[in-house]
Amino acid sequence: MCSYTPQYWPFSAPPEATILGNGEYPTHNIPLQIIENSKYIVCCDGAADKLLAHNIIPNLIVGDCDSVSSEVKQKYSDIICKIDEQDTNDQTKAVKTLLSQNKKRIAIVGATGNREDHTIGNIALLVEYNKMGADAAIFTNYGVMFACCGTHTFTSRPDQQISIFNVSCKTLNSNGLAYKIYPFSNWWQGTLNSANGNTFTINADGHYIVMLNY
Amino acid sequence: MCSYTPQYWPFSAPPEATILGNGEYPTHNIPLQIIENSKYIVCCDGAADKLLAHNIIPNLIVGDCDSVSSEVKQKYSDIICKIDEQDTNDQTKAVKTLLSQNKKRIAIVGATGNREDHTIGNIALLVEYNKMGADAAIFTNYGVMFACCGTHTFTSRPDQQISIFNVSCKTLNSNGLAYKIYPFSNWWQGTLNSANGNTFTINADGHYIVMLNY
Repeated sequence: MCSYTPQYWPFSAPPEATILGNGEYPTHNIPLQIIENSKYIVCCDGAADKLLAHNIIPNLIVGDCDSVSSEVKQKYSDIICKIDEQDTNDQTKAVKTLLSQNKKRIAIVGATGNREDHTIGNIALLVEYNKMGADAAIFTNYGVMFACCGTHTFTSRPDQQISIFNVSCKTLNSNGLAYKIYPFSNWWQGTLNSANGNTFTINADGHYIVMLNY
Repeated sequence: MCSYTPQYWPFSAPPEATILGNGEYPTHNIPLQIIENSKYIVCCDGAADKLLAHNIIPNLIVGDCDSVSSEVKQKYSDIICKIDEQDTNDQTKAVKTLLSQNKKRIAIVGATGNREDHTIGNIALLVEYNKMGADAAIFTNYGVMFACCGTHTFTSRPDQQISIFNVSCKTLNSNGLAYKIYPFSNWWQGTLNSANGNTFTINADGHYIVMLNY
């Protein structure tokens, strides 16, 4: 069984599963390739209809099942994992389900592109998945986003567009970025940056989210 | 001269100007009506091409002019306001330009929908515009977003989807929302809420961003 490692995948070992969220179905080649090469796909609720419309059958459908069609719900009842809990969204339910299956390296696609509050929520939740022990990354039509804790060095290319969102760092600085970063207090402050060369390093004492644009 | 007040406009007096950002051109009726009824439209750089493609001529084109087409740049050179400053994005340059014209009530459309880091940055910048004295609101295909400081009561309808993003509040609580809010430390915590009735109140000691979904 061969393992597929997507371009820009930020962790060392390849992903073990893919989550398809109920945002916009991707159009960019990188998230589309992730879906096509995935060995195990969990759909968030109504995302199952979208995946099936692309002639791919999910391995599991997770969520409160308020958006999956009744046809799909009936035909694929064997792979439905209904979780009613109100305190977490479907993306988090899918991550927790995968962690319980001992799949901790997770590529997430379809997480953005509709309601902006859902987009922001899904991106910010990456920090919680990091705390849970998951290596999770969101691949959109524009780039990849993932949460980190502490100091890390990242692969880049000269002039690659980079954004850093501070969540809990009191110390936050960088080497190899066009603009020096600092312990940002608002989210816009970490946008519009770029890499100088083939690596950059972030020195930090807490959690932050990195977006590497393709 | 009649003034147009968009549905869901969160301030008392009607908007004095519209900014069209270089994100996705809107498709929802509410932002489209804002564009059609606007007496003064500022386009962020390449957004001018999009507005002109809809047969509407902007009043001003603001930005570093790296994305507006050379045809538009030449034909509409009289209304180009080139600002090279690297520390702010084109949306902020447009807001500052309007404030310098004494237009402080600003509807922003086309701010979201492409790169997620730009979407997040543009939304978060609403807090800076509030600090500058602007009454600015972003209208997307899904809802309206605006920054507040301190305690406010908002108009809503029962079950309307609401998200609250905390920026600088140490005190943050609510009356009239389905889930009690608190001084959130990460952005996902304020999503997935809803209004109980026709108003809700947020008690706060700092800045936060409200999204009212249509």
